[in-house]
Amino acid sequence: MTQMKQAKHKIVTPAMEYVSRQEEVNAEIIREGIAEGRIVLPHNKNHKMKCPQAIGDGCSVKVNVNIGTSKDYDDFQEELDKAKTAFDYDTDAIMILSTWGDLRGMRRKIVEMSPVPVGSVPIYDAAVKAYQDKKRVIDFSEKDFIQMFKDHAEDGIDFMTIHVGVTKPVVEKIRKTKRILKVVSRGGAIVAGWMIKNNLENPFYSHFDEILSIAQEYDITLSLGDGMRPGAVADGTDDLQLEELFVMGELVERSRQAGVQVMVEGPGHLPIDQVEMNVKLAKKITENAPFFVLGPLVTDCAPGYDHIVSAIGGAIAAMHGTDFLCYVTPAEHVSLPTVEDVKQGLIVSKIAAQAVNASRAAKFKGKAFQREYKMALARKKFDWEEQAKYALDKGEKLKQYQQRRPYDQEGCSMCGPFCAIKIVEEITKG
Amino acid sequence: MTQMKQAKHKIVTPAMEYVSRQEEVNAEIIREGIAEGRIVLPHNKNHKMKCPQAIGDGCSVKVNVNIGTSKDYDDFQEELDKAKTAFDYDTDAIMILSTWGDLRGMRRKIVEMSPVPVGSVPIYDAAVKAYQDKKRVIDFSEKDFIQMFKDHAEDGIDFMTIHVGVTKPVVEKIRKTKRILKVVSRGGAIVAGWMIKNNLENPFYSHFDEILSIAQEYDITLSLGDGMRPGAVADGTDDLQLEELFVMGELVERSRQAGVQVMVEGPGHLPIDQVEMNVKLAKKITENAPFFVLGPLVTDCAPGYDHIVSAIGGAIAAMHGTDFLCYVTPAEHVSLPTVEDVKQGLIVSKIAAQAVNASRAAKFKGKAFQREYKMALARKKFDWEEQAKYALDKGEKLKQYQQRRPYDQEGCSMCGPFCAIKIVEEITKG
Repeated sequence: MTQMKQAKHKIVTPAMEYVSRQEEVNAEIIREGIAEGRIVLPHNKNHKMKCPQAIGDGCSVKVNVNIGTSKDYDDFQEELDKAKTAFDYDTDAIMILSTWGDLRGMRRKIVEMSPVPVGSVPIYDAAVKAYQDKKRVIDFSEKDFIQMFKDHAEDGIDFMTIHVGVTKPVVEKIRKTKRILKVVSRGGAIVAGWMIKNNLENPFYSHFDEILSIAQEYDITLSLGDGMRPGAVADGTDDLQLEELFVMGELVERSRQAGVQVMVEGPGHLPIDQVEMNVKLAKKITENAPFFVLGPLVTDCAPGYDHIVSAIGGAIAAMHGTDFLCYVTPAEHVSLPTVEDVKQGLIVSKIAAQAVNASRAAKFKGKAFQREYKMALARKKFDWEEQAKYALDKGEKLKQYQQRRPYDQEGCSMCGPFCAIKIVEEITKG
Repeated sequence: MTQMKQAKHKIVTPAMEYVSRQEEVNAEIIREGIAEGRIVLPHNKNHKMKCPQAIGDGCSVKVNVNIGTSKDYDDFQEELDKAKTAFDYDTDAIMILSTWGDLRGMRRKIVEMSPVPVGSVPIYDAAVKAYQDKKRVIDFSEKDFIQMFKDHAEDGIDFMTIHVGVTKPVVEKIRKTKRILKVVSRGGAIVAGWMIKNNLENPFYSHFDEILSIAQEYDITLSLGDGMRPGAVADGTDDLQLEELFVMGELVERSRQAGVQVMVEGPGHLPIDQVEMNVKLAKKITENAPFFVLGPLVTDCAPGYDHIVSAIGGAIAAMHGTDFLCYVTPAEHVSLPTVEDVKQGLIVSKIAAQAVNASRAAKFKGKAFQREYKMALARKKFDWEEQAKYALDKGEKLKQYQQRRPYDQEGCSMCGPFCAIKIVEEITKG
């Protein structure tokens, strides 16, 4: 039985027990959330996972790291190093988005390594195979859609993005759209391209019952991919995007009825004042399905800084109810990230999550707030070692910047003798 | 006559004309905003300024860079290099916060160099002089408060932070506060320390009419410093902070009546869900005075990344009406920033401002939105040179990351043949 089916039967599983301790809430709250589909607990029966994660209503905001090869950078070991870095810096989940090399080998290896849920986009495999066979990336069969999904399930993948909301009416709107960038989702483009070429309905959609039955068997959490997400701030929030969202709403309902866990993916690129509205709209249409966003990027004018742009959008999205933030690296829109890019992307994404998690916790309750509290105490005491302990990057940058600090002062080189904390401590004592 | 007095007399000055073109609004809107105190146009009569700036209601969000020596890093030339970097990367204003070395020489030099408004905190000079004379940093006379203000005015400083809201009842609250970090503002600590030591009212407050008359003479824009801003997320929003804000409300009113331009400074460190409320509260209490924030920092757990933490808080603050963002560098809370830190701090702060400015502009109107639009078009055409033109860092990072891109592909090394844009362009054409 899937976690959701057990939750519906009032069974609290060991994984539910585990995440409830992590979330500092009663296990019953987690169980109820999973039963109602407001929380997902991605957990493929073939993945021995040390740290399961609850994603959704009332849970702390989680972050996801993407790794994976590309045709131009196909280095198996480098991708494993990225994964290791992601685990070392406490990612809550990892997605493998490889589009070259030994796809299955890497998938199995990462599942074996990963203490947290692993995600993937199975349709990539079909496109890669087609291209490697000297065909167009959309030249594969209807059966491949289902087969790839099944392969990934067998390999232990916990959550899978399927661009199932790209139905025929959605594809019709692609032709008519006034967007500058019509489709920026790789998976969405592959599926739409396949549908246009074959003049057929999206196989994920027409065979959705089959998808559900595989998902039931392995307890796959579906992540309904937003193939039509806006890909530029100037394109934010339009009928194309929302048409797909409405389909997702219908599929969330069908998944829940089948006892299959499901979450929904969201934009993308949005003007900053459209972020809150988009989150609330998605939550309404999908009846509070866990919401997973990539970004959103709130300006396109900062290539090389898109991890930061994304943290701004992500923090706002999370503040208004987004549950799961997909990191973006500084290399986004330009090249495949390096190991260092992965690390920077993750830390910055965790900053966004921490800011929201600390604000949600009641004062002096909750570990995210406690972290803020202890950091402030460490600052008051000028205890730099202690500060490093609470730093999201494990204090690496702090130590780097401290090298500019003269050794004979406990304060910092910015204020020196004019340190506000010291002036006031002294005068209020005396 | 100050800009404000002229505005009240229905005179549109050349500086108002200039900023109205920059803001893409009718000059009458600027004039009215200045007359009513919703907009400031900092412009000391002794500063020949190439690019005046309008800060406030209906204007684009502006960013400020802080530079200045400290006792431990007292390098005149390095600070000039920081200023030059700030101008090169299009800061809208600069503040000189030196606490060592040739204070007056640097001030005059920066005013001479700066195409944009220059700010300062005159009380630092009194503290530095006291310390250099082997006394405590709070050992100076009541007259020094006014004299330093006058000196800075003569030197051409356009806006000055005075911690005038730190009155006796506020200081009383410092003793009783449950905050972890009582005072983190250098200026606020110096003023409060002086008051406690001398058991006297804040001279900025008791001599406020004198301050106003100097401000009138040179057209100084007052920036009411928030000496009691919270200095930790765990300390966000309390009576100490608000007591000072109420005093500021009173002083805004008195400044406006005297025809003196005035803006108000705000937090500091705040939980992310208290940012909107703080901005709206400050705007209400000060009757829409232009609002200038440092940060706000929405987590304390990322030393070395505080420019990013601050951009998150700043973007949210600006979205809800904040007019002026003071940058924060990655070195904040640890050491004096380097030239590179200044550059990174500024770019990231400009990202926050651009995101909000683009969202405020009506679609296809306004240069901030046009920048987004043109960037999206450049992306669609894979025109990397054009993309670099619209990048806030002048395309430096883009070019750096592009070195990972193979020369024989127009796309990027992330997606290669699986580029969504290309797949859809091809299939919808064919």
